[in-house]
Formats: sequence, structure tokens, C-alpha cells
Amino acid sequence: MDCLTAIHARRSIRDFTPEPVSETQLEILLRAAMAAPSAGNAQPWEFVVVREADTRQRVAEIHPYAKMAPKAPLGVLVCGDISREKYPGFWPQDCAAAVQNLLLAATAQGLGTVWTGIYPVEERVAMFRTLFNLPERLVPFSFIPVGYPKEDKPQVDRFDESRIHFERM
Amino acid sequence: MDCLTAIHARRSIRDFTPEPVSETQLEILLRAAMAAPSAGNAQPWEFVVVREADTRQRVAEIHPYAKMAPKAPLGVLVCGDISREKYPGFWPQDCAAAVQNLLLAATAQGLGTVWTGIYPVEERVAMFRTLFNLPERLVPFSFIPVGYPKEDKPQVDRFDESRIHFERM
Repeated sequence: MDCLTAIHARRSIRDFTPEPVSETQLEILLRAAMAAPSAGNAQPWEFVVVREADTRQRVAEIHPYAKMAPKAPLGVLVCGDISREKYPGFWPQDCAAAVQNLLLAATAQGLGTVWTGIYPVEERVAMFRTLFNLPERLVPFSFIPVGYPKEDKPQVDRFDESRIHFERM
Repeated sequence: MDCLTAIHARRSIRDFTPEPVSETQLEILLRAAMAAPSAGNAQPWEFVVVREADTRQRVAEIHPYAKMAPKAPLGVLVCGDISREKYPGFWPQDCAAAVQNLLLAATAQGLGTVWTGIYPVEERVAMFRTLFNLPERLVPFSFIPVGYPKEDKPQVDRFDESRIHFERM
């Protein structure tokens, strides 16, 4: 799929068919995520792939905006690895760029995703840390349910010329 | 350009030809940026388009990693608008997703970019705030030089299987 088409077609998908996401598709998603830029090329990220139904159910229980997690056959927990940072404080931006690449790569394959935020909400960080047995160096950043869309969401136009300024404010 | 091709072809470009970036191309970049997802769909971003040579020179002086800014015919200052946040603390992630979309849309058009980080380095934030006369609600997030590449950087493979875990740590 064309790059601009994927950028503009991507929507938050919250209902999924039971059709599984293959290992090949999963690798395409994770390769795209890891191709993101990062401060000092630190690549401060790790990923936990979740297919077990019990875990997806638990995610829905501990995250107020991840009620759809049990419906998606796959979930990806994106974590920041603060031990890899070269320029302190940039890891959330780096992980966000990786997530955006993952969402676009999914869209390009006909898959639906929704970015459910964890960090910087302290209570959510603590609960995901416990559920996934994360070591101190890993901070749970976001949880991305992935599957074939069971809802058809049209493209939206978020372009707003009033957000653009020239030379200075 | 294919979505996955753009994701994997994107590199940080730090040398540029003098060839200008057209208004049409600029709009494609900003449309892509504004198509990014954001927490609560808050779209907490604004953009300052910089073409003036004096300003690009000043950017190079106040940012230690933006020495290439004078060579790029165009720069985009991406700002977070904290007054628009619905879920406090998520704006840097939202802006990072917008930046990543902008970088990919540039790659897809044959343009080169480099993501130079501003936030959360306090001194940089203060200097960009002054240079661009930003109101309190806007936080300078990153500065993106844009132009036609004068260097040819091959694709790199950042895929690292050791960053992938299954079910839990």
C-alpha cells in the first residue's frame, strides 16, 4: 500500500474478526517498529507479543481503554528500555515513532490496530509491570491490539490550516 | 512509494541540495503529520514553517545537533500544544507520531529529513521558545530540516530478534 494512503487510511480499530495474525505478518510489524528513528540511534525498545486469551482478558481489566483486547487475536506490548538511552528523556518519543511505524505497517497489510496508552499514567504502568513481570529497566509504554477489522471506518481529514504558522509566532 | 519501503528507506539526512521544497510538497508533509493518532484525538500540535536563512542559521547556533539546518531549504518546528491535551502527559507521544508521519511522507516524495530533538532538554526548549516567540501553551518539541538529499544512505536493518518476547518476561 502507498505510504501516504496508509498514513491517511489508518484509524483506531476497536472490533476485530477472530482471524489470526500470522507469524509472517507479526514480523513485518516488528521490523517496521524497529526501523524507527531514535535519539542517538539508541533503539530503546522491547516488545512482548501476546496471543494468550487469559492475558488479553487481564489487559482489558487493568486498562480502561483496552476493553477490546480480548477480541483482537494479537496484542503487542511496547516497552521503553531506559537502560539503553543515550540522551535521557527521549525514550517515549522513540517508542512513539516505533508504534506509529507498527500501526502504518499493519494498515498496509489490511490489519486494524488501536494505540492504547500506558505510560505516563503511573497506575497503569505499575499494573502492566506486574502482569508482564517486567524488569526495572523496561517501562510499559503502550499496548496495541492487532487483528482484522470488523468495523469499516472511513478516512478522516484532520488537516487544520490554523495549526500552521510561517517563520515565527 | 510503498509504505513498508518508506519505513525501511527512511534515514537521517544531514546534507541537502539547494533545490527548494514546494508549497505542494510542504502541504503533503503537514497533512501527513496531522493524520497521526493522538490521545483522545486531541491533536495537540502546531507547526512553524521556516524558510528564512537567518532563522535556520540561528537554529544551528542554539541546537547542538542541528548544524545542518542552514543547508536545508526548509525546516519544520513541531510544537506541542498543552492547552489541547485531554489526557495529560501524552502530548510528546502524539507529537512524535506526527513527526514520524512527516518523515515518512518526506521519504515517499524523495525528500530527506532529520529529527532533531528539543523537548525535554530544558535549555533547548527555552531558546527555541524565545527564537520563535512561542506562547506558553506551545512547547517546542523538535525541529525537522527538510530538503533534497545530498548524501546517499543505504537502508539499514535494525531488526533484533532479542528485543521480542512472547507472552511475558
